[in-house]
Amino acid sequence: MTASSIAGGPVALLVGAGDAIGAAVARRFAAGGLQVCMARRDAAKAKALIDEVVASGGALQAFSVDARQEAAVQDLFAEVEREVGPIEVCLYNAGSNVNTPLLETSESLFRKSWELACYGGFLTGREAARYMLQRGHGTILFTGATASVRGGAGFAAFASAKFGLRALAQSMARELGPKNIHVAHLLIDGGVDSEAIRKRMRARIGDKVDSLPPNTLIQTKAIAEAYWALHVQPAYGWTHELDLRTSIERW
Amino acid sequence: MTASSIAGGPVALLVGAGDAIGAAVARRFAAGGLQVCMARRDAAKAKALIDEVVASGGALQAFSVDARQEAAVQDLFAEVEREVGPIEVCLYNAGSNVNTPLLETSESLFRKSWELACYGGFLTGREAARYMLQRGHGTILFTGATASVRGGAGFAAFASAKFGLRALAQSMARELGPKNIHVAHLLIDGGVDSEAIRKRMRARIGDKVDSLPPNTLIQTKAIAEAYWALHVQPAYGWTHELDLRTSIERW
Amino acid sequence: MTASSIAGGPVALLVGAGDAIGAAVARRFAAGGLQVCMARRDAAKAKALIDEVVASGGALQAFSVDARQEAAVQDLFAEVEREVGPIEVCLYNAGSNVNTPLLETSESLFRKSWELACYGGFLTGREAARYMLQRGHGTILFTGATASVRGGAGFAAFASAKFGLRALAQSMARELGPKNIHVAHLLIDGGVDSEAIRKRMRARIGDKVDSLPPNTLIQTKAIAEAYWALHVQPAYGWTHELDLRTSIERW
Amino acid sequence: MTASSIAGGPVALLVGAGDAIGAAVARRFAAGGLQVCMARRDAAKAKALIDEVVASGGALQAFSVDARQEAAVQDLFAEVEREVGPIEVCLYNAGSNVNTPLLETSESLFRKSWELACYGGFLTGREAARYMLQRGHGTILFTGATASVRGGAGFAAFASAKFGLRALAQSMARELGPKNIHVAHLLIDGGVDSEAIRKRMRARIGDKVDSLPPNTLIQTKAIAEAYWALHVQPAYGWTHELDLRTSIERW
Repeated sequence: MTASSIAGGPVALLVGAGDAIGAAVARRFAAGGLQVCMARRDAAKAKALIDEVVASGGALQAFSVDARQEAAVQDLFAEVEREVGPIEVCLYNAGSNVNTPLLETSESLFRKSWELACYGGFLTGREAARYMLQRGHGTILFTGATASVRGGAGFAAFASAKFGLRALAQSMARELGPKNIHVAHLLIDGGVDSEAIRKRMRARIGDKVDSLPPNTLIQTKAIAEAYWALHVQPAYGWTHELDLRTSIERW
Repeated sequence: MTASSIAGGPVALLVGAGDAIGAAVARRFAAGGLQVCMARRDAAKAKALIDEVVASGGALQAFSVDARQEAAVQDLFAEVEREVGPIEVCLYNAGSNVNTPLLETSESLFRKSWELACYGGFLTGREAARYMLQRGHGTILFTGATASVRGGAGFAAFASAKFGLRALAQSMARELGPKNIHVAHLLIDGGVDSEAIRKRMRARIGDKVDSLPPNTLIQTKAIAEAYWALHVQPAYGWTHELDLRTSIERW
Repeated sequence: MTASSIAGGPVALLVGAGDAIGAAVARRFAAGGLQVCMARRDAAKAKALIDEVVASGGALQAFSVDARQEAAVQDLFAEVEREVGPIEVCLYNAGSNVNTPLLETSESLFRKSWELACYGGFLTGREAARYMLQRGHGTILFTGATASVRGGAGFAAFASAKFGLRALAQSMARELGPKNIHVAHLLIDGGVDSEAIRKRMRARIGDKVDSLPPNTLIQTKAIAEAYWALHVQPAYGWTHELDLRTSIERW
Repeated sequence: MTASSIAGGPVALLVGAGDAIGAAVARRFAAGGLQVCMARRDAAKAKALIDEVVASGGALQAFSVDARQEAAVQDLFAEVEREVGPIEVCLYNAGSNVNTPLLETSESLFRKSWELACYGGFLTGREAARYMLQRGHGTILFTGATASVRGGAGFAAFASAKFGLRALAQSMARELGPKNIHVAHLLIDGGVDSEAIRKRMRARIGDKVDSLPPNTLIQTKAIAEAYWALHVQPAYGWTHELDLRTSIERW
């Protein structure tokens, strides 16, 4: 595979793609021969990853977007379709975990949690469907969490948003499946290894974070592989939902 | 029970209480001896019901509120607590079913559907919890639907909002249960008999709507009875979620 | 209500009815005016309860049955219908919690767990349906547990049996509902107050069992009240499944 | 890969492996380099498949077993471990769909349905765990169906058995995961393309069965691929449950 053979070919658009899951999925879909477009708040942060992927013969570009703004999302899709190629697979991965007692959950926190984890997923998923329906094929992927299927103390805002995203994914799957668009939802049940989570853990458990038992955290490449496996499933055997956790996770 | 014996006594506050479920629940909780406060967009519409309930010895008042406005909801709770009595039970019943293909679902429809069915439930439930936690008891009830547990073609907006409300209810139940606040969620699985639904059915099936087979539609008094049964459960045996449908409903 | 006014009237048949849930349900349905028939391995154990219920004007009889024997179950139904009256409501309550590591779960334990918790429920439910379908009405109730919806370490045998019972209840509800038979399943999520559980707890925590925090255990009268509420629901608003736990239970 | 390089290597033992799913999984795991052992009622029926797989360089043997007999299952595992190699992955795939009205469901049908779909899965899964726990690794796979998560009219026997199998799988996953045994459950939601189903369809729709719309039936190779993907997942990202259906399936 060479850059020139990829150019103009099918695109994987990853919205809300950060340095953990987003980067791993970008590597995997680039290795699979797609032109990968990462969309995140600040595209500049993807520079090192772009260098890495391009050096290994893959195609990766980054775009800045606020996924909670309808016009911004529509512009993103239009630009990618026009400048890069047809979007064959689209992942919505935004949303940040919050844990706050109910009485301390401000209306702003509740609303913003929903805008990022659910509403942006709607804007993205609808736009992806719009382009894919014209061509009659495509894959739309959503990142779920434990809170997508379980509400808990302190999770009124986050679980509410993630349940909402799951309903969106399920509704889209039932509506778009017969039109040959594959919509899937990945339930990530546990902590995902990333700089962010290790920083939070270090604040809590100190240097023990450097010697965690094996399989304490989900590795992002397992997530990327799961998304890739979903994408390459044939229409005579599609998965809509699956969970993912480490061997030692309690659930 | 007389009006004077009720005055100042415990209050049932019904938010998003209309002429169907809202009215039936108002009758049931009034018959149970609570002072009932209905909050809806236009309080004037409750006039006939108030006359009816008061004539039978019950206590019912109506308040105009936009449940999607934080200040309005907070003012409502403050006024009811100050002018009527302590809110012992609170129902959030707003939300209107929409069924629209994904590509025709505007961002405004998606957002408004959520604001009414989910965000208003958060504003209401949080405020109810605030007052009830001070007293160490109370019941908070949420109205769910088929779309609370099942996404479907055309239901991206509505199911997303109702899943979100269910997550809120479940999170609140897990957080507030140990603090003696009973939070429950009623899954209404099917059409509810009301003027509105009969009007919609008449448009579709004409006069056949006047001779529907028995048990085609859920009767609002069954819903009211279910809410009442939830409210009077003792803390050594609480139900968080139950479904409700007619005998002939397919599910 | 007098014994004579009850004689020949509708019957509540409780299969697998012991001294905890069984006795409480017997009291509740007797108070509701039904002739109650308790069927358990050893009818003699119900003597004191019979005296109590009859003294308060209720009707209660006990029958010995092995609910895992098809002929025994069929004989029981025939005898009750012939000697007592038409079975209007039937509860299947048998099944005993077992918690054993997988490798120590003998085939006999796995099989017996299923025979008691699931197979007996099939024999009972099918027989109840047979009589009720002829008359066109009736209520069939099943007792579920946490393990009905959640498998766990050590619960391969018990959860497998209880999941199976839940599937039976759900299948029966979907098949029999349109024929006016109400089938419901009660998810009891937590320890139920009984001599048996207190004995087990005493072995573990000693005298602390005499001063448990309020609402540590589900009280059987709450369960009985839940079953009664299900039984009296009208066909325009039936519940198929509900959970029940104490306010302080973690779930 | 050659026969000699495979000999003594890791084994995939497929119990209840027939000509549809069983054969496809056998092909996939043989292609993956495992020695495949198919266990079914009549090993002779696997002859053509063995010839095919061996001709393509794979290793496949067949064993006759009644998976509902504890001793037979234990003998099978002992023989395979002794004669073939260490069982690294085990699939339980037995169970046959039955659809019978409740009153026509004999106790024998109910019992046999459970013995095949659930009890045999316990005997197999427990034995697999016994060997794998000694080595500290392995994969145990179970085949689920729509009826594993949804009871329906006519499905009292089948759904009850499949719910039970799902509980077994979930309990085993929670118990064995921390011991590095991966247990997964595949929900096959729809008809699977096979001679058997086409024969049944032909009886119903005649020659139309030869010109079904694309993606009417799940292809067994998609199922095989799903099982393979589960098997090769690393312990830092395991899936316990996923669904599988065609693009046009209604669900």
